[in-house]
Amino acid sequence: MQAVGVVVEYNPFHNGHLYHLQQAKEASQATVVIAVMSGQFLQRGEPAIVDKWTRTQMALLNGADIVFELPFHYSTAQAKDFAKGAVTLLDAACCHDVAFGTEDGDIAPFYNTWHLLKQDQVRFNQFIQQQIKTGVSYPKAMQYAFSQLTGNENTPYADLTQPNNILGFEYIKAAQPLAIRPIAIQRIAAHYHDTSFHHQTIASATAIRHAMQQNMDITPMLPSTSQQLLQQFIRQQASFMDWEKLYPFLRFSLLQLSLTQLQHFADVTEGIEYALKRYAKTCHSFAEFITALKSKRYTRTRLQRMLTQILLGVTKEERHYQEPTYLRLLGMTTHGQQYIKQFKKQFTLPLISRVGATTNTQLQLDCKATDIYSLGLKQALTPDYKRTPIRL
Amino acid sequence: MQAVGVVVEYNPFHNGHLYHLQQAKEASQATVVIAVMSGQFLQRGEPAIVDKWTRTQMALLNGADIVFELPFHYSTAQAKDFAKGAVTLLDAACCHDVAFGTEDGDIAPFYNTWHLLKQDQVRFNQFIQQQIKTGVSYPKAMQYAFSQLTGNENTPYADLTQPNNILGFEYIKAAQPLAIRPIAIQRIAAHYHDTSFHHQTIASATAIRHAMQQNMDITPMLPSTSQQLLQQFIRQQASFMDWEKLYPFLRFSLLQLSLTQLQHFADVTEGIEYALKRYAKTCHSFAEFITALKSKRYTRTRLQRMLTQILLGVTKEERHYQEPTYLRLLGMTTHGQQYIKQFKKQFTLPLISRVGATTNTQLQLDCKATDIYSLGLKQALTPDYKRTPIRL
Repeated sequence: MQAVGVVVEYNPFHNGHLYHLQQAKEASQATVVIAVMSGQFLQRGEPAIVDKWTRTQMALLNGADIVFELPFHYSTAQAKDFAKGAVTLLDAACCHDVAFGTEDGDIAPFYNTWHLLKQDQVRFNQFIQQQIKTGVSYPKAMQYAFSQLTGNENTPYADLTQPNNILGFEYIKAAQPLAIRPIAIQRIAAHYHDTSFHHQTIASATAIRHAMQQNMDITPMLPSTSQQLLQQFIRQQASFMDWEKLYPFLRFSLLQLSLTQLQHFADVTEGIEYALKRYAKTCHSFAEFITALKSKRYTRTRLQRMLTQILLGVTKEERHYQEPTYLRLLGMTTHGQQYIKQFKKQFTLPLISRVGATTNTQLQLDCKATDIYSLGLKQALTPDYKRTPIRL
Repeated sequence: MQAVGVVVEYNPFHNGHLYHLQQAKEASQATVVIAVMSGQFLQRGEPAIVDKWTRTQMALLNGADIVFELPFHYSTAQAKDFAKGAVTLLDAACCHDVAFGTEDGDIAPFYNTWHLLKQDQVRFNQFIQQQIKTGVSYPKAMQYAFSQLTGNENTPYADLTQPNNILGFEYIKAAQPLAIRPIAIQRIAAHYHDTSFHHQTIASATAIRHAMQQNMDITPMLPSTSQQLLQQFIRQQASFMDWEKLYPFLRFSLLQLSLTQLQHFADVTEGIEYALKRYAKTCHSFAEFITALKSKRYTRTRLQRMLTQILLGVTKEERHYQEPTYLRLLGMTTHGQQYIKQFKKQFTLPLISRVGATTNTQLQLDCKATDIYSLGLKQALTPDYKRTPIRL
């Protein structure tokens, strides 16, 4: 038995994800697929539209054999920490490879980039700092620094202004000191697209969420099991989860805490706490609030990540990167169970199936994320410490 | 012009309050009545059923000429601090007297009690501590200490196991170092009661709130203006305010904060934070939550006061008694306005009509109380810093 790892959010699981899992297996020659999946809160700093248990079922019904939770500490972090946490977990679970999607399926540009930066990191950083001081955004500063270092070479490099490429690059970097090997899968979306949304079968999760909001037919884009699980969630909860449902609690925090207290929270910098308090007073919806806050300097994603930390009460100190300390099992197929049975002793991190009373601060944070996610639902979820993994 | 002060909550304003205002004026020979009224949160540690502006209108339409806000710092405190803050404010507003209700309208027992305790405070406290160690409640310990000091004397003393007497006693104590003079008004309730609730015209605010919950007719118990204001509130907000409406936010706080953080809040002692967190996880309503927490040691009022401090984020340090620093005007009649014009310069505290941007922590807390109270309402209130006093 050999395992390939994938790093996912499945918000929700769609045909593109299905294709990616199939390709990952094929390219790696693996017989087992292990997904490390963000829990209740995602990398864009927002709650998942359906809870992690529902998304685990989607994954297990469509090709994943094992789902581990990417702890909140990594799932809501910037690309570097997100990738490092995820790849470390896959390596700890003895995955031979980690497969990630790129535009053209070529991994060489990522390695070229990584080698260049490894040699010239200091100059690279200097270029970036110099650019940022002139007021340009981080991605643009990176692009500039890159062009300065590469000159007119013909070697292909990864365009690190694209969020997906940044993640791919960080997977490669994270994998370097580990046994796990990164492999690139060509993304399907660009090629199999139909021009009309109604006839296409591949669309991004963002496009699908948008289509759902508009009550458009998303049937062709999702596996039927994924759709059934979405419908089941709606029957129980009446609507999908979003920031609007958690805004009353965020707003309460912002009204209740002092400016000094707000400064202690992760990602709260440069006096943004004044704006947070001011707009919390006047904005009655999250849409209104985020629109008021957004600026060139503070993108929606940056703000949402910060707000997620405030919502969960994570301080600057707690936010510093910490190495993963456990493999939290969300679910497995029978096949996955066999893999775990066979490799468990070689796992370099303890496997956690049932949380119970824990003093692990990362694990406590995952449980807290479920408690707070639950407050925005019509029907509360079973608290994490009482749940057992899903078995399919 | 001479003013008499009263310390009130008006939750809601009823015929007993009307009678008390008339008697206070008569007994003191005053021409102006000044009410110091709890704001959005009350001495039992709960939100008022209608907001402070609505209750100010009730007061001004029924005999009060001026309403000052009793800041949150005092309004949710134990009797001693509640009384001290209120009496100090009335004294600062040049009230000649402060009128409070007693069973028989006799003030002598309160003075006797005060004199006795002034002489024998040390022994009194020793008796109390000794009793509390055996596990009895504070009121019972006080009763015992009292009997030990008085022996079989015939001098009448105030029964300090009755909450109303405790308040009266604390008014007397608080008035001692000040110019203001306490006067006792005989309470009407016991004498003018009808046995059938439906025919009586005097009932306590607690009984009235209970009757409202049961959809009973409360018409005979309230002045018509008071009723119209209650109806107006219901038209806007659909229901009265209560702890249930704020429970989601309290629950969020309890789930979000660590045990160590909870320990820093005012009134959180003796490891109660463990129970707070445990029951917040499982209790989906405030009724369920408070029932789970209640015990002989932790009465409903004690718990509610603690929970109010947590809801507003008040720490142990901030809870220590601080002297009042302002007279916040909530409303006045034309007559009240004349009084203010005439006496303003003699007020020993600054008069605040409009809050604006303030650095006064007590005043900030009053504004925060409105912001958080608002979160439980269907229609948010105008923030405090934007409001001007009511003029009738």
